[in-house]
Amino acid sequence: MNPVVGIIMGSDSDWPTMEAAAVALAEFDVPFEVGVVSAHRTVKKMVDYAESAADRGIRAIIAGAGGAAHLPGMVAALTPLPVIGVPVPLKHLDGMDSLLSIVQMPAGVPVATVSIGGARNAGLLAVRILGASHPEIRQRMVDFQAGLEKLVAEKDAALRDRLMG
Amino acid sequence: MNPVVGIIMGSDSDWPTMEAAAVALAEFDVPFEVGVVSAHRTVKKMVDYAESAADRGIRAIIAGAGGAAHLPGMVAALTPLPVIGVPVPLKHLDGMDSLLSIVQMPAGVPVATVSIGGARNAGLLAVRILGASHPEIRQRMVDFQAGLEKLVAEKDAALRDRLMG
Amino acid sequence: MNPVVGIIMGSDSDWPTMEAAAVALAEFDVPFEVGVVSAHRTVKKMVDYAESAADRGIRAIIAGAGGAAHLPGMVAALTPLPVIGVPVPLKHLDGMDSLLSIVQMPAGVPVATVSIGGARNAGLLAVRILGASHPEIRQRMVDFQAGLEKLVAEKDAALRDRLMG
Amino acid sequence: MNPVVGIIMGSDSDWPTMEAAAVALAEFDVPFEVGVVSAHRTVKKMVDYAESAADRGIRAIIAGAGGAAHLPGMVAALTPLPVIGVPVPLKHLDGMDSLLSIVQMPAGVPVATVSIGGARNAGLLAVRILGASHPEIRQRMVDFQAGLEKLVAEKDAALRDRLMG
Amino acid sequence: MNPVVGIIMGSDSDWPTMEAAAVALAEFDVPFEVGVVSAHRTVKKMVDYAESAADRGIRAIIAGAGGAAHLPGMVAALTPLPVIGVPVPLKHLDGMDSLLSIVQMPAGVPVATVSIGGARNAGLLAVRILGASHPEIRQRMVDFQAGLEKLVAEKDAALRDRLMG
Amino acid sequence: MNPVVGIIMGSDSDWPTMEAAAVALAEFDVPFEVGVVSAHRTVKKMVDYAESAADRGIRAIIAGAGGAAHLPGMVAALTPLPVIGVPVPLKHLDGMDSLLSIVQMPAGVPVATVSIGGARNAGLLAVRILGASHPEIRQRMVDFQAGLEKLVAEKDAALRDRLMG
Amino acid sequence: MNPVVGIIMGSDSDWPTMEAAAVALAEFDVPFEVGVVSAHRTVKKMVDYAESAADRGIRAIIAGAGGAAHLPGMVAALTPLPVIGVPVPLKHLDGMDSLLSIVQMPAGVPVATVSIGGARNAGLLAVRILGASHPEIRQRMVDFQAGLEKLVAEKDAALRDRLMG
Amino acid sequence: MNPVVGIIMGSDSDWPTMEAAAVALAEFDVPFEVGVVSAHRTVKKMVDYAESAADRGIRAIIAGAGGAAHLPGMVAALTPLPVIGVPVPLKHLDGMDSLLSIVQMPAGVPVATVSIGGARNAGLLAVRILGASHPEIRQRMVDFQAGLEKLVAEKDAALRDRLMG
Repeated sequence: MNPVVGIIMGSDSDWPTMEAAAVALAEFDVPFEVGVVSAHRTVKKMVDYAESAADRGIRAIIAGAGGAAHLPGMVAALTPLPVIGVPVPLKHLDGMDSLLSIVQMPAGVPVATVSIGGARNAGLLAVRILGASHPEIRQRMVDFQAGLEKLVAEKDAALRDRLMG
Repeated sequence: MNPVVGIIMGSDSDWPTMEAAAVALAEFDVPFEVGVVSAHRTVKKMVDYAESAADRGIRAIIAGAGGAAHLPGMVAALTPLPVIGVPVPLKHLDGMDSLLSIVQMPAGVPVATVSIGGARNAGLLAVRILGASHPEIRQRMVDFQAGLEKLVAEKDAALRDRLMG
Repeated sequence: MNPVVGIIMGSDSDWPTMEAAAVALAEFDVPFEVGVVSAHRTVKKMVDYAESAADRGIRAIIAGAGGAAHLPGMVAALTPLPVIGVPVPLKHLDGMDSLLSIVQMPAGVPVATVSIGGARNAGLLAVRILGASHPEIRQRMVDFQAGLEKLVAEKDAALRDRLMG
Repeated sequence: MNPVVGIIMGSDSDWPTMEAAAVALAEFDVPFEVGVVSAHRTVKKMVDYAESAADRGIRAIIAGAGGAAHLPGMVAALTPLPVIGVPVPLKHLDGMDSLLSIVQMPAGVPVATVSIGGARNAGLLAVRILGASHPEIRQRMVDFQAGLEKLVAEKDAALRDRLMG
Repeated sequence: MNPVVGIIMGSDSDWPTMEAAAVALAEFDVPFEVGVVSAHRTVKKMVDYAESAADRGIRAIIAGAGGAAHLPGMVAALTPLPVIGVPVPLKHLDGMDSLLSIVQMPAGVPVATVSIGGARNAGLLAVRILGASHPEIRQRMVDFQAGLEKLVAEKDAALRDRLMG
Repeated sequence: MNPVVGIIMGSDSDWPTMEAAAVALAEFDVPFEVGVVSAHRTVKKMVDYAESAADRGIRAIIAGAGGAAHLPGMVAALTPLPVIGVPVPLKHLDGMDSLLSIVQMPAGVPVATVSIGGARNAGLLAVRILGASHPEIRQRMVDFQAGLEKLVAEKDAALRDRLMG
Repeated sequence: MNPVVGIIMGSDSDWPTMEAAAVALAEFDVPFEVGVVSAHRTVKKMVDYAESAADRGIRAIIAGAGGAAHLPGMVAALTPLPVIGVPVPLKHLDGMDSLLSIVQMPAGVPVATVSIGGARNAGLLAVRILGASHPEIRQRMVDFQAGLEKLVAEKDAALRDRLMG
Repeated sequence: MNPVVGIIMGSDSDWPTMEAAAVALAEFDVPFEVGVVSAHRTVKKMVDYAESAADRGIRAIIAGAGGAAHLPGMVAALTPLPVIGVPVPLKHLDGMDSLLSIVQMPAGVPVATVSIGGARNAGLLAVRILGASHPEIRQRMVDFQAGLEKLVAEKDAALRDRLMG
């Protein structure tokens, strides 16, 4: 099955953060591809990746980066597809630099930004984007949300049990 | 034509910020609806709006809010559709509170956050989301991006002319 | 004895932070209940909880949440009771996002916010709220404050002893 | 009628911010008193005010201060009553210093903090605190909240009319 | 010898931070006293301490506190002596709340603030204050500064040796 | 009368901020001198100023600077006198850069930092420093503090009058 | 004379900020060129500009951008020349987003960042870079620095005159 | 071979951060010198170092410092050479104080600031500065950048292999 979501990151050291996006997509049976593409170290490759993504069948791109995080915004500049940015926290500043570098894009080129380190939500947002036009995927998201609700109910019961016997 | 994007905001005082989302959608001939829905003052209305949106044919929701901005996240909790959050800057803190209240969502419920006051990009992101599954909309985005490029080229020429005459 | 204070939190992982609120209430013999209620994952349950609290005899609600922390504000929107918000610090940003998401509520819907991770103070604030109309509880708070004073006096003596022996 | 809420502030220059608390209390027919009491310039007066408040029939204290804002916390140290802190924004830092100086109280002495400049919510919180033990005041808060909902509905209709005519 | 500098802190848990002030004073043979005095838990003791300090022969007060750090400012309000504030970093926010709560004092009541956790500099500042009117103490500070210069010179030589040896 | 306090600033554009220090000193009849000395543009002059101050009879130095504000710290490195730093707010960042550049000094070289734009308090702190060893100046500060108290009492009465007639 | 410094900016609205870089270069008789090149709207043009700059005789590039400011970093990725980044402040956040987006570059691709809005210093830094290998330019910088010193001396005299007559 | 780049730092405790600058220069065969020079503890040595650097053949200076980091700016004030500032993160504030103290220099005296802890980039920036006027060094930078690209390609292949086998 051809991938419909591309997950890219500036460095393989971002993988421990970004893996959660892949896991989320796999849970929804959404085929995806993974790659290391650096806005600063492999400009041409980034341009090629972003420009060819739509024609290769990709429908949304998830890009993670840290610090002066330019990958999501640059890719968004080069594709008409929705681009989801994941601010990867680095050693200092707790990801605030990554967040601002990704979310504060100028008018004309949006990046759909999720929380600092929020790669799982990036995957789920890609599913919602696909589901916007595919009712069966949207239904899976409805079911997933019902599952979240059930999970909280169980945790609630467990906590009450533990505390109040 | 039935609206496919919903633009909501917590207060009509957010309209001067949020109007740019409507303008962007209109430029792309994407039908939309507009409403004032407050997470804190009209909870039931918000729940109804979010729960019914997908069945009414909405494909993406743009929600703007400021301060302890709960509207985008609450709506995202109640719909399987992609929700785009616009941090509206209030009188103090320059929108940093709005941004963090919207973007830092817990795992399970993503909000696609754009820049502080970035309603135009919210509209453009909705277009990209629709375009993910509709080639003709995607093509319009490609054309729009080419237009941006042309605009910058003209500004560049004008600046050089002015300076170097 | 029926609970008069409700302690709720978005996830059972918040319990290690929130437990201090329960301990404070227990020290003052104030009956309380504990529950996991998520603004984002169990919206209906949250609405039911908040709307029924006053009629069930609850007099104040303590709500803890982290990141884009919407639980305290949403509950405050749905009850006429005083709601105390505890900003739970998450992995990044040291609780600043939690604090701003809770404290920066719009006019009309107040949340009584305590310090980052300050669940013990949330419990003590609930006691003060009850004591506002119940002199015997207020007297217990007066005694408690005298106890704090005595504790500091002992620590002062101990430090002086150790240093100056 | 004897006042049951005290509104104090460090300087008369805080009155334009704090007035909204008085207005909110007046809307709910809650009798209140107003005074200028400075933690730094009138320490004895502050101590007297805080220590005598409960015996004078005060049931909650609203204290506004800016910068290194010590008034709410100091008053809270000297009374068993609930103290509501209003961070008053000064010329620099947009009230962030006021907020942190008020909300980050040590364990033992809580201050119920509202938003930066949020004096109206301070008044409403005092009403909720009184309503915790007085059903008729609580009912007025329920009515007030219904009024907020109606107001938003009207604004929503007006915006839709204007846009879609 | 009677103490001429008072070192106080809100809690004995601040001692590991504040100890460096005592060490600095001891290095300069400046007699000092140490005490635990809490602005929030022992208001009367704090008032007594601050009001009596000058008459007891104290010439400068060093006060350390964290979070909503009110001790230095409150003591400064109650004494004509110079008060040096040490922002003690707590578990969250890295001492930024402590710093702002101490340094942002209103006009009329200054606190001489040093760096976050900078108790050694608080001690050295007290020495400089004493030295302003006592030439022999000022001379000791001149010698101390020459010693710092020598120390850096040795470290420089050691680093060059190690690297270029 | 020879000046005993030196007021210096990096640029004459800092004078509107720094003037309040001079006014405070004048109120206490403390003779002072004023100068423009830049850490970055007149290094030698700064070195000369700082090294000669004590011998010229100066007992405390007030230094104001903005942005990467190096003047207070550099002067403190070159004199054994107490140096008071005033963070001057510039066009951006609201003085936060000025504050951190002044207050976060390394161990060994303290700067007594006051609030952002807090030149009046810098002057008052200089008076307190002088008063530490001069009882008559200390007494004037005691009187001044009593005056502050009276002023607040008058403002309190005026506000109560206005509100309650 | 062929330009040896390139000044580029993401939008012609950055010109009022960036003009000061051009003025500084003109003062030193350093030939320069100016252009509008957007990292997000004219990617190909940016790539061409950066890749060809060295061969066209450019020796340093000054790039200004605001918000999620990617232009300086992307250009630095595409040229071996030194790139100077100017954080342009936008409507919100006072340029902090621009600063972090420019300065926090990953290892391998440096950007020489100057202060927020600091275009004049960007021009002066370009002069210093050229002067590193050209003694006559370096001498002009020495003369310029002496001029700064003189200017401060004059301002100092004027202020003293005005104050002390 | 005579050094052409000087690496200085305020304390030998900065060496673990600053070493990466030396490594980068060594990789490019650029001769350098290393020294401990403190703006606050060895003012005269700093002045001598900065004033003599150009005449000794130094072409760029890399200066690292933390907290109220004055070394880079002070050295820049005393030399016509380009000065590269490295913000060294200390125990608190994650280097934000260091960054602002270095980058926010006043007009007239630029410091080329790199990222927090970014000493490797400081070294690479010095190489670019030298390469601005030396084609063979510039060519080495071109080769280095090609090497970065190759490295990312290898990491990309490795990640794809691992994930997709």
